[in-house]
Amino acid sequence: MQTKNRMPQNGADNRNRNSKRRYYTYRKASKKPGVLPPMETEKVRISFLGGMNEIGKNMTLFEYKNDMFIVDCGLAFPSAELLGVDIVIPDFTHIVNNQERIKGIIITHGHEDHIGGLAYLLKQVNVPVYATKLTIGLIKGKLEEHGLLGSVKLVEINPRDNITLGQFNIELIHVNHSIPDAVGLAIKCPAGVIIHTGDFKIDTTPVDGDMIDLTRFADYGKRGVLALMSDSTNAERPGSTMSESSVGESFEHLFRKARQKRIIVATFASNIHRVQQIMDVAAARHRKVAVVGRSLENLVSVGADLGYLNVTKGILISVDEIGSYSDDKLVIITTGSQGEPMSALTKIAMGEHKKVSITPNDYVIISATPIPGNEKMVSNVVNALMMRGVEVIYENMYDVHVSGHACQQDLKLMIGIVKPKFFIPVHGEQKHLVKHASLAQSMGIARNNIFIGDIGNCIELSKDGINQVSSVPSGEVYVDGYGVGDVGNVVLNDRKHLSRDGIIVIAATIDAASGYVVSGPDIVSRGFVFVKENEELIQSIREISENVITQQYDKRYRDWNSVKTRLRDEVTHYVFERTKRKPMILPIFMEI
Amino acid sequence: MQTKNRMPQNGADNRNRNSKRRYYTYRKASKKPGVLPPMETEKVRISFLGGMNEIGKNMTLFEYKNDMFIVDCGLAFPSAELLGVDIVIPDFTHIVNNQERIKGIIITHGHEDHIGGLAYLLKQVNVPVYATKLTIGLIKGKLEEHGLLGSVKLVEINPRDNITLGQFNIELIHVNHSIPDAVGLAIKCPAGVIIHTGDFKIDTTPVDGDMIDLTRFADYGKRGVLALMSDSTNAERPGSTMSESSVGESFEHLFRKARQKRIIVATFASNIHRVQQIMDVAAARHRKVAVVGRSLENLVSVGADLGYLNVTKGILISVDEIGSYSDDKLVIITTGSQGEPMSALTKIAMGEHKKVSITPNDYVIISATPIPGNEKMVSNVVNALMMRGVEVIYENMYDVHVSGHACQQDLKLMIGIVKPKFFIPVHGEQKHLVKHASLAQSMGIARNNIFIGDIGNCIELSKDGINQVSSVPSGEVYVDGYGVGDVGNVVLNDRKHLSRDGIIVIAATIDAASGYVVSGPDIVSRGFVFVKENEELIQSIREISENVITQQYDKRYRDWNSVKTRLRDEVTHYVFERTKRKPMILPIFMEI
Repeated sequence: MQTKNRMPQNGADNRNRNSKRRYYTYRKASKKPGVLPPMETEKVRISFLGGMNEIGKNMTLFEYKNDMFIVDCGLAFPSAELLGVDIVIPDFTHIVNNQERIKGIIITHGHEDHIGGLAYLLKQVNVPVYATKLTIGLIKGKLEEHGLLGSVKLVEINPRDNITLGQFNIELIHVNHSIPDAVGLAIKCPAGVIIHTGDFKIDTTPVDGDMIDLTRFADYGKRGVLALMSDSTNAERPGSTMSESSVGESFEHLFRKARQKRIIVATFASNIHRVQQIMDVAAARHRKVAVVGRSLENLVSVGADLGYLNVTKGILISVDEIGSYSDDKLVIITTGSQGEPMSALTKIAMGEHKKVSITPNDYVIISATPIPGNEKMVSNVVNALMMRGVEVIYENMYDVHVSGHACQQDLKLMIGIVKPKFFIPVHGEQKHLVKHASLAQSMGIARNNIFIGDIGNCIELSKDGINQVSSVPSGEVYVDGYGVGDVGNVVLNDRKHLSRDGIIVIAATIDAASGYVVSGPDIVSRGFVFVKENEELIQSIREISENVITQQYDKRYRDWNSVKTRLRDEVTHYVFERTKRKPMILPIFMEI
Repeated sequence: MQTKNRMPQNGADNRNRNSKRRYYTYRKASKKPGVLPPMETEKVRISFLGGMNEIGKNMTLFEYKNDMFIVDCGLAFPSAELLGVDIVIPDFTHIVNNQERIKGIIITHGHEDHIGGLAYLLKQVNVPVYATKLTIGLIKGKLEEHGLLGSVKLVEINPRDNITLGQFNIELIHVNHSIPDAVGLAIKCPAGVIIHTGDFKIDTTPVDGDMIDLTRFADYGKRGVLALMSDSTNAERPGSTMSESSVGESFEHLFRKARQKRIIVATFASNIHRVQQIMDVAAARHRKVAVVGRSLENLVSVGADLGYLNVTKGILISVDEIGSYSDDKLVIITTGSQGEPMSALTKIAMGEHKKVSITPNDYVIISATPIPGNEKMVSNVVNALMMRGVEVIYENMYDVHVSGHACQQDLKLMIGIVKPKFFIPVHGEQKHLVKHASLAQSMGIARNNIFIGDIGNCIELSKDGINQVSSVPSGEVYVDGYGVGDVGNVVLNDRKHLSRDGIIVIAATIDAASGYVVSGPDIVSRGFVFVKENEELIQSIREISENVITQQYDKRYRDWNSVKTRLRDEVTHYVFERTKRKPMILPIFMEI
């Protein structure tokens, strides 16, 4: 087990710009990246490129002799300290280094944390992508955005079908999840069978009637499974995960309670079954449905086109038409269940949405629970709605949301029917992996047969044992606008510094011959103090600056850098004494 | 009820620097601030200066004819978007405007959200402060930091004692809370009796044996109470709040389970009873106790001095001495139960604490639940500890934490014994106030007799009715370093802009006579891209800048501002096309 501290080192002092070549990854890459030699042994090798000790950017590489394939290629959403970063994707160095050996990518389902990095990978390494129908549909949308559609081979596969990738043979096994068409994998090679659950739950009454294919998992279990890699997201939660269809019952109850009010339901944009249930209850109560929010409109369109969403004829109206119906004849389905500042629900709650105005005759159901870290944003939206007199159903009220991930009881059931020799908890932070490991131990799997890994770990497996053999390059690559990997710790530290106390620019033009300041120093600040109310402070900074520059320039040696350093030190000291703040000091000298 | 959107308007466009005189408050002040005329009526007036529709900075002003007094003067911790702001305090304008009428300040207990703004207020308005012994002790520490000790009259009052402030007579009533010596208030004036609970819980087995003085609340209820103002923090939670002493039982169990390991317990720095219980269990198991973290050391010192903490002789050791004891003889009590980045526990978990090094032989108990918004920080600390092989007890495991606030059952009990004519839920966000109001309604209080307020509201009360009469100046004043109120929306918007995409400074020296650029333009960026890897981009910005300046300076009119505007527009456009980022563009022209 890893004991090294992998937390980002974003301290303001840690800004040596030359100390790291691959500065965009804060997790240490292995000392020997490059190409691993093809395997001589009969072992199967697994490299974790994402999703271990973190939520998101799931990506795993399987290797047997000369053949490799990838499972999933997701993104992660940036933590609060990654200022200005849009998304985080895995480090693809190891894939690029071994690209001739990669036979394909299998995607288990269409959530962002499993497909969101794919377009970025395919720009570097063009290999075929295998997935089920809906997942392929969602991937197509992604590739189109990146101008990749047409240049990538997409292969649609059904559950229970097999894919042959070199010496690997992989069967897709249907699982339940919060998006349809999710699969787990049975990965077969001469070293044995590895079961990878993907994200899953056990839903005995799923909305589409298609229960997880436990029989198939049990079949493999009966024949002998080398290792089980299983979804740890809900490993801390006791009991079984509720069925998605229980949410439909709650909707029926709440739609009755809403009586004459307009109903607004916020949910995750990818949850087709949730949308289906809202539409079904709306249809039963003779309400029209308008969909608001780009990602949700896209899902409804793809879902309906591919046959995953059954839209009652005439029920769907455009948001522009809502004015033509009375409140009691309307349901609005919207994004923003996490209180995201730019989402439709937030704009509606703040009175800033162009097409939907909130009134006390609205009845809002937030059909989701806050993802850790989003609690406060969701509260803000609930409070804003309530201040407009709206009744709001949120959090655990009335079972308006169920998780898409298996809880402890179901996780144990999976372990029990797969009966693996080795167990590898995946998809989770350390606390989830540790808890999942303890569940496996409680079912009789020896601690030595359980591997709690980290991203970058590479392990070898055979029936004789499980061993960590080396590390592979891995980490976080930050995507900011069009930039992939060009924002690193230096830039982030500067953003953090700027965000706290702003900046003071000290600009001066100096006569190179005489050393006199011929213009300036001009003091310009942003994000520090409101200048108009602090002119005396700014004037003092100007005087200090002029003194420092003049003193230094009287000397024979005119060392720009030492003058700048002294200026930074003196102004920083003065400003801190006066204000207890430490803005960034940026001297700019121009010589003529 | 308020329906106006009170959310901060921090959009990047909202930066008109002159449009607001009192720019440091984003909540609208009333149209007619200034002094309200002394009351002619027999009504009591209440103005909410903080703690309504928000968590924190509790402050309420009571007024009868010419007399006024204040209850509490707290701070709030800044939300994530208040970049660089240290603390938030109430707007004192209304107090300053009416200072001759203020007879005193009563503080209900020593938590920051009740005392944290006091020093800032007392610098502007020197009035006597009334509180119980421990609260006075904690206030003294605050005043000393601000150099105010000696110049402020502090009056120590015992529960069941009365304070006369003009025509008001106020009795302090003992309540249970997560800090000792907390009180509620019975506020008596000719208009009637108002009960203010302060923060409270009902603990039938408190650690100090001193149960909340329900008898006294019931006495007032029996004689007739005009209005009840009651703590809404836990209004969403069903049932009763567990007793603090149940945590002691959990500690006994866990200290046994820890066996030979060193025990580290993180808790809130102000929870003396929690610390008492940890010390008691440590003493029983013959372990020494070291206290780590400045605020906790201060609490232990004040608590022991004033007799609120009973320290077994010889049990307390300095953190420098921990090396002299084996792990099984040690308990470390530390701050950082919320995962605060600079706290002792976080430093310990990250391996950055100077005096405490973590090993797999540590057993960490986080004796707190995350305050909304802190969930992710706490998880980070738990994960970091687990990656070092440490066993961690956290969140709802083993009842290692109980709340200091009354849950629904207890809130209803309070309403039931006080039997108020009017009900005013206080201390909570809108969702808490609304829920608390619904509890009161369920007990038979008419909706018209319940006031759900907002900060800035001013109401008048008599047995004939409850009416909102006007608004008073109120809002958020940001404290950043020594600056109080000098950071407003302009500065915050700049910080937000800088935090996302950084800054590009374009500096040029221009010959005033000819209009030629004689030096520069120099392009300096921070927080935008890593310059060394983007020299071509920087060079393009330089060329665009030179073109814009040269073109403009060929003209007869040299309008600095229009050149700057055009430069900003063109560079912003170019940079966005190239990078999809919008850094702040700061042109600096120097003329010679």
